[in-house]
Amino acid sequence: MFFASDNAGPAHPAIMDALVRANDGYAMGYGADPIMAEVRQQIRDVFEAPEAAVYLVINGTSANSLLLATMCQPWQTIFCTDVAHIHEDECNAPEFYTQAKLTLVPSEAGKMTADALRAKIKAEETRGVHGPQRGPVSVTQVTEKGTVYSLDEIKALTDVARDHDLPTHLDGARFANALVALDCTPAEMTWKSGIDAVSFGGTKNGAMGVEACVIFDPKLAAEFEFRRKRGGHLLSKHRYLSAQMQAYLADELWLDLARKANARTAQLAQGLRTHNGAQMLFDPAANIIFFDMPRREHQRMLAAGAVYYVMSGDPDHGEPDEMLTARLVTDWSMTESSVNQFLSLLHG
Amino acid sequence: MFFASDNAGPAHPAIMDALVRANDGYAMGYGADPIMAEVRQQIRDVFEAPEAAVYLVINGTSANSLLLATMCQPWQTIFCTDVAHIHEDECNAPEFYTQAKLTLVPSEAGKMTADALRAKIKAEETRGVHGPQRGPVSVTQVTEKGTVYSLDEIKALTDVARDHDLPTHLDGARFANALVALDCTPAEMTWKSGIDAVSFGGTKNGAMGVEACVIFDPKLAAEFEFRRKRGGHLLSKHRYLSAQMQAYLADELWLDLARKANARTAQLAQGLRTHNGAQMLFDPAANIIFFDMPRREHQRMLAAGAVYYVMSGDPDHGEPDEMLTARLVTDWSMTESSVNQFLSLLHG
Amino acid sequence: MFFASDNAGPAHPAIMDALVRANDGYAMGYGADPIMAEVRQQIRDVFEAPEAAVYLVINGTSANSLLLATMCQPWQTIFCTDVAHIHEDECNAPEFYTQAKLTLVPSEAGKMTADALRAKIKAEETRGVHGPQRGPVSVTQVTEKGTVYSLDEIKALTDVARDHDLPTHLDGARFANALVALDCTPAEMTWKSGIDAVSFGGTKNGAMGVEACVIFDPKLAAEFEFRRKRGGHLLSKHRYLSAQMQAYLADELWLDLARKANARTAQLAQGLRTHNGAQMLFDPAANIIFFDMPRREHQRMLAAGAVYYVMSGDPDHGEPDEMLTARLVTDWSMTESSVNQFLSLLHG
Amino acid sequence: MFFASDNAGPAHPAIMDALVRANDGYAMGYGADPIMAEVRQQIRDVFEAPEAAVYLVINGTSANSLLLATMCQPWQTIFCTDVAHIHEDECNAPEFYTQAKLTLVPSEAGKMTADALRAKIKAEETRGVHGPQRGPVSVTQVTEKGTVYSLDEIKALTDVARDHDLPTHLDGARFANALVALDCTPAEMTWKSGIDAVSFGGTKNGAMGVEACVIFDPKLAAEFEFRRKRGGHLLSKHRYLSAQMQAYLADELWLDLARKANARTAQLAQGLRTHNGAQMLFDPAANIIFFDMPRREHQRMLAAGAVYYVMSGDPDHGEPDEMLTARLVTDWSMTESSVNQFLSLLHG
Repeated sequence: MFFASDNAGPAHPAIMDALVRANDGYAMGYGADPIMAEVRQQIRDVFEAPEAAVYLVINGTSANSLLLATMCQPWQTIFCTDVAHIHEDECNAPEFYTQAKLTLVPSEAGKMTADALRAKIKAEETRGVHGPQRGPVSVTQVTEKGTVYSLDEIKALTDVARDHDLPTHLDGARFANALVALDCTPAEMTWKSGIDAVSFGGTKNGAMGVEACVIFDPKLAAEFEFRRKRGGHLLSKHRYLSAQMQAYLADELWLDLARKANARTAQLAQGLRTHNGAQMLFDPAANIIFFDMPRREHQRMLAAGAVYYVMSGDPDHGEPDEMLTARLVTDWSMTESSVNQFLSLLHG
Repeated sequence: MFFASDNAGPAHPAIMDALVRANDGYAMGYGADPIMAEVRQQIRDVFEAPEAAVYLVINGTSANSLLLATMCQPWQTIFCTDVAHIHEDECNAPEFYTQAKLTLVPSEAGKMTADALRAKIKAEETRGVHGPQRGPVSVTQVTEKGTVYSLDEIKALTDVARDHDLPTHLDGARFANALVALDCTPAEMTWKSGIDAVSFGGTKNGAMGVEACVIFDPKLAAEFEFRRKRGGHLLSKHRYLSAQMQAYLADELWLDLARKANARTAQLAQGLRTHNGAQMLFDPAANIIFFDMPRREHQRMLAAGAVYYVMSGDPDHGEPDEMLTARLVTDWSMTESSVNQFLSLLHG
Repeated sequence: MFFASDNAGPAHPAIMDALVRANDGYAMGYGADPIMAEVRQQIRDVFEAPEAAVYLVINGTSANSLLLATMCQPWQTIFCTDVAHIHEDECNAPEFYTQAKLTLVPSEAGKMTADALRAKIKAEETRGVHGPQRGPVSVTQVTEKGTVYSLDEIKALTDVARDHDLPTHLDGARFANALVALDCTPAEMTWKSGIDAVSFGGTKNGAMGVEACVIFDPKLAAEFEFRRKRGGHLLSKHRYLSAQMQAYLADELWLDLARKANARTAQLAQGLRTHNGAQMLFDPAANIIFFDMPRREHQRMLAAGAVYYVMSGDPDHGEPDEMLTARLVTDWSMTESSVNQFLSLLHG
Repeated sequence: MFFASDNAGPAHPAIMDALVRANDGYAMGYGADPIMAEVRQQIRDVFEAPEAAVYLVINGTSANSLLLATMCQPWQTIFCTDVAHIHEDECNAPEFYTQAKLTLVPSEAGKMTADALRAKIKAEETRGVHGPQRGPVSVTQVTEKGTVYSLDEIKALTDVARDHDLPTHLDGARFANALVALDCTPAEMTWKSGIDAVSFGGTKNGAMGVEACVIFDPKLAAEFEFRRKRGGHLLSKHRYLSAQMQAYLADELWLDLARKANARTAQLAQGLRTHNGAQMLFDPAANIIFFDMPRREHQRMLAAGAVYYVMSGDPDHGEPDEMLTARLVTDWSMTESSVNQFLSLLHG
């Protein structure tokens, strides 16, 4: 009953096997390993983007920061929601790498609307050299609230960006979970919807630690490479990143894993809907649920061994009836029965 | 016959096994995994430093940059040799993280002397607020030329630093190779010789990719943690770093691997000494050899399948008799027979 | 009828005279001029702060950025209002110098309340190393909306900061205008109200271009000096900064000039109150007025030669009856009669 | 007898008069003042560069740092001599603004040769993404040793840069002194010799504090403007920078002042040549002299009221016969008789 995070579960055995297989003999370092050549092609195929620049890094913070820095100037501001991971959870890494600032667009259910984005872009319009200049728009898919932008919603945001000649970034730490939720292609969810660069996550979906940075305009490739090295994010024994991504993409493993994670969340959501003390805050489209429940109930669940984050207050101290917001996250490794165990406990 | 780099060989099977073992069930992320608690204690024991702050990162560039940034102010200059890895091979990462600059101390055989260091420190003395201010001294052990500082030499350098109240950093990408060469303890090679912080390498000595940052003054710990996160170098699935380091240190595996690597270099050196066309530039104390040999001979070796870097010119084009400098690096995975094969070829 | 900005008027003749007087013979550079020694004492006397570190720079952007950088770490966030000059009008200079980010506290009439500040500080509480860490609180006095914090209001804000061990900065680009509005002492408006460092403006109040940075804790002095030099803000011919500030402070010139500027705004406010088409947005306490008026009326005024900024829309195009917000700023150099001319025109 | 620095003397009265004249009525800020429009044209005329982007800043450190940042990427290295002002005297400001590093080219008499430059550029050639990438070449004219590059020498350096597609910067803190020494045109000393951007100094040659940044490729203009604002180097009351530069250029005042300064140095050099205890280190081509003289003699001169820097040791303590290097700098304000007084004393 571990629902604290999708970075707490194990890597998928196929990925561990690939690591072990890759651990044979000598291989050129720093991305010149032969597996990386295959991975580059795999990702270009997956994205139907034969020219795309493709790089691997160890985590989402570096993927986001390096991509944004490549698309941004230090005197600009990056538009993202007020709950964006790049704002809330990366300890100023985006600011460190870009030297720019973030402009927070108000969000509902983790999403910004095209109108809200346009209003914030507009607000930076009239101060000449004095204000920060308008920079990239960064969209998170799956959002931090567990919701998923429709293709039309993404397109509406990138249209606003395009109207102002601003590049667009997709923080896809949970790319696969969104993709299977939308049942669309990677190309449709990205460049066909106007996205210029993607943090394509593997870590939260069964890898040990690997994310791909996909840039559809290959003219930015050289700058990205220098920034990656300068940030200390180019691995010498790069084959171990390549091997993870290769296995992740092979035989649609990545989609299978995301479907499993989403199915567990759907199962949880189904159970929560029938519990009269719990109220889900947003419609859970992927593998995250936010829900309110009385402190007393949280105490009971946590005491019984359920592990998850209560976000809005101390579960241990306070009025027993106070509603507290909590988050549940599922990953590929959870079983139907462990979810049932949680739900039985909840309803018990 | 692959002597190009010690980051090209495979990870040791015990380390891969540890990764697979660690891949079980749920574990808290970001360094809160239980294996890390053990690793912290292992390293404190190894260094006889019960208070030391200990962190794991993925590679040497990030270890060096984060440690130096923690010990340095942006208006300072870091003293290192003119061949230091932090100067030559990290694409401005140390400058990016520290915002400071580097002052290059002339080196011989990869080493700076206490006198040369003192002269450079002295030279920054008299310009008040106008010049860069004096910052940390960074010493590389094993040096980039394959030589090893004696304990007295390290002590002499840290004494100079101490005279000027400057902190000291040891770039120990090949820490183990130096340690077995000197046959001393980790404490003797570091804090007992006046070193304040260490990049303790695992990657070049049989790990997949892990380095420990060891800071003997725990008051710097919080700053390091913020810098690591902000640089994108805090791993969510941290257990896979921990597991590597745990296995690396267990049963003195790290020392065994270094002894093996050094033995292969000794074997190579022995063979080179008896080859009348080749001249070693420095006495190889650890696992790196630099040697001069006529282009014609390099061509012959490379054509026969030996893999190594010729540093001072194009091996393929030019006068056949011109002496060209090349580098040989050995790691734990090389066999006595592959070295013999190389030497037979050389003498053949 | 020039009400566009208080940086558009001339410097006071006494300040120009001081410049000419200072232009005699040789003087040590970089702040070692004898006039600076006097200025340092003047400012310590004015602030009743015999230990304060005192520096001069050319403008408010550098004063704010250098002070905040001295009080802040790159992994922190600075708390300021959503209309703060450091957020809106300095093209990321605070981010450049501090490497940190800004957290925007909602404001009313240009002010943040202690409750609003506490809520934003609270919101950064629970994310460990992942979120930005809490840094300085920056308060603008006179606010960007022309309002003035009472001493109690400042104290309430610094109390919140103190509760969280956060340092406090006062952006006093219009320090003198606030001081005469409150009729208090500089000490009361700063350190006696809990402020740790002040950007003490001269430029908008009759100087050619000089601001003092006043830091009440002299332990921060050395860091400020290095940051100033490194930012290119230490003037070689420093005596010309010193001379301005000396004359500005002599014989309470600075207070006289602020009283004049405020009086002109009071006169304008009086006139606006009796104009039934115009509505002031905030009670103008110092030398700035924001007011709404129909586009038609703005067009008439601007066509007749009045110069001021219409902020909320294009005065030339749109519905004649639409209310548009405009800003009037007065400085010491404006005459009663020029204000009367403006008001006659308005009522005409 | 004040020969310590050319930033210690007074501003020329014509420049102070211009300041006072400019101090009349209202003027748009931030470079939109009408005087700046004239200055832009003056400088374009002076440089025969009708398209050049022209900006004013307060000092040489900001001029150099902002120009280099505009021409450079953070992963590059800037080539300059080992005695360059940007290396020795700006407290890491170039590194702060560019985020890049400096590669020091060995110098003789303050100059680098084309061969020395080419060797250093070559040395950065072969490390791929690992080494710093090659960036701008920065040439100082007058050099820090008081020597002057011939046009052929400048051309030879910029040819090397051009061969490697590197942009070139001229640190012209003493531009006028060099120009009158070479008796050539500004165009000849800059773009006709292959220079891309110039820090055109006024401060050391009779201004109060103003330098022009001249960029021959106007496509870089917007970036420079953002960088200037973000560095806090855009003045609100910009007219006072404009007025200085306007007067500086009017009626060839700048050339007259430089001729005067150089003449005083020539007079000093003449006197030093006939003093058998003093030895000039370099042929003084402009307004700076370096010379060796026994400590005893320095003591005598300093005691008698001469003011200058002894660079290589403490003049007060040590062997009386030890030769110590000192520097003499002259500016426009020095009189023939004050130099004669110094020389009489010397020979006395």
